[in-house]
Amino acid sequence: MTTLSLIGIGTGNPDHVTGQAVKALNAADLILLPRKGEEKSDLADLRRQILAQVLTNPVPVAEYDVPTRSDQDDYLGAVNDWHDAIAKVWADAIATHLPEGGEVALMVWGDPSLYDSTLRIAARLPGLAVRVIPGITSLQALTAAHAIPLNTLAAPMTITTGRQLRDHGWPEGAVTLAVMLDRGGAFTTLDPEGLTIWWGAYVGMPEETLIHGPLAQVSDEILATRARLRTEHGWIMDIYLLRRGDDV
Amino acid sequence: MTTLSLIGIGTGNPDHVTGQAVKALNAADLILLPRKGEEKSDLADLRRQILAQVLTNPVPVAEYDVPTRSDQDDYLGAVNDWHDAIAKVWADAIATHLPEGGEVALMVWGDPSLYDSTLRIAARLPGLAVRVIPGITSLQALTAAHAIPLNTLAAPMTITTGRQLRDHGWPEGAVTLAVMLDRGGAFTTLDPEGLTIWWGAYVGMPEETLIHGPLAQVSDEILATRARLRTEHGWIMDIYLLRRGDDV
Repeated sequence: MTTLSLIGIGTGNPDHVTGQAVKALNAADLILLPRKGEEKSDLADLRRQILAQVLTNPVPVAEYDVPTRSDQDDYLGAVNDWHDAIAKVWADAIATHLPEGGEVALMVWGDPSLYDSTLRIAARLPGLAVRVIPGITSLQALTAAHAIPLNTLAAPMTITTGRQLRDHGWPEGAVTLAVMLDRGGAFTTLDPEGLTIWWGAYVGMPEETLIHGPLAQVSDEILATRARLRTEHGWIMDIYLLRRGDDV
Repeated sequence: MTTLSLIGIGTGNPDHVTGQAVKALNAADLILLPRKGEEKSDLADLRRQILAQVLTNPVPVAEYDVPTRSDQDDYLGAVNDWHDAIAKVWADAIATHLPEGGEVALMVWGDPSLYDSTLRIAARLPGLAVRVIPGITSLQALTAAHAIPLNTLAAPMTITTGRQLRDHGWPEGAVTLAVMLDRGGAFTTLDPEGLTIWWGAYVGMPEETLIHGPLAQVSDEILATRARLRTEHGWIMDIYLLRRGDDV
């Protein structure tokens, strides 16, 4: 019997890690750690840094190479194939390092529930019991950094992706919209009139950069800052919240 | 100069507390702790339990009585008056216990960004610098307990309240809807056809109770369980996720 714990570790600030995550990592028989294939090598190093900081038990760590996702036009098809390939790598690593079964742990950026693939990949492995340890999401790191609420008073809010925003526009009736996984500037497809944006890159990390203001006024500044930071660091992760009207 | 740190502490599991929250609590010159006025006395005790567990510095704790919210028909008006009253209590407590200014800390259930009043109350205090420390929300504790993603693959999701769901129905175009602050059974106002529900009470706590299934099949069970638990414990906090269709 093998249990896989998907452990949310927050957004790159080792202090985001919860007591529950620390306990789960130390209780594991094996920790799976992605090595190559992630463009963002700073992130792989951050996982190692977190382990160095929180592990008090000598838990074996198995590094694995992350398969590459194909660039085919069928986005959902490419994602599904990629998840199949990662599931196979995980199964092989577990069979090699833990042939008798046991407790396997995997560190997940943010929280395993929000725009993360690990639950869907784990579901491809038969006979595996899956456990989830929640972690701080980049959305929470963004609102914390700006010291703003996610929702206006007693009102709903929607979380979406850059792709959805480009393809489908502003969701009907939404007042607050958080946008994740934007490859850059999906907000330029919107009429900026009446919209305020709170933008953040590398939220929660030492490189954290924040811009906020009326979208019409700060849109160009965000695009330029994003391009500059991406060149400087070799990678970027950003997120933003858009709000219609004057409510808070 | 006074700084108020709003510190997310998760949903009642002391292991939800992050390293950042522990540091912020220990670095404070004063911790404000709500005493009476919360119906849910278990929760006040949990705050004390968390402090006993994480405080390594002798930080003074000032308990305060939470004003009562009036039951007037004008919901938003009543909430605004209530926030004014709480802001006055905070200002008095800070003036009494920290007349020279300093670092004040306040523990917030879940995360200060999500259906929480503390940011709006803090904004009523002039000259106060506000800092936010993110914490695990009940929504994340719910999805972790059920080991489900919040969003379906690459799709948006909406977070709303029981009141909104009753007053405005299923949001146009939504696939996934998380419902918070429901006084009970707002989902009964929906046509259950094609909807799946993942419900949880006291998520993250020892009393955690979970039910999931097609809404048409488990709706009555959830209502009966909720009523029983509320009687047993004297209070209840529950949350649920609704999803249309078969996507995951």
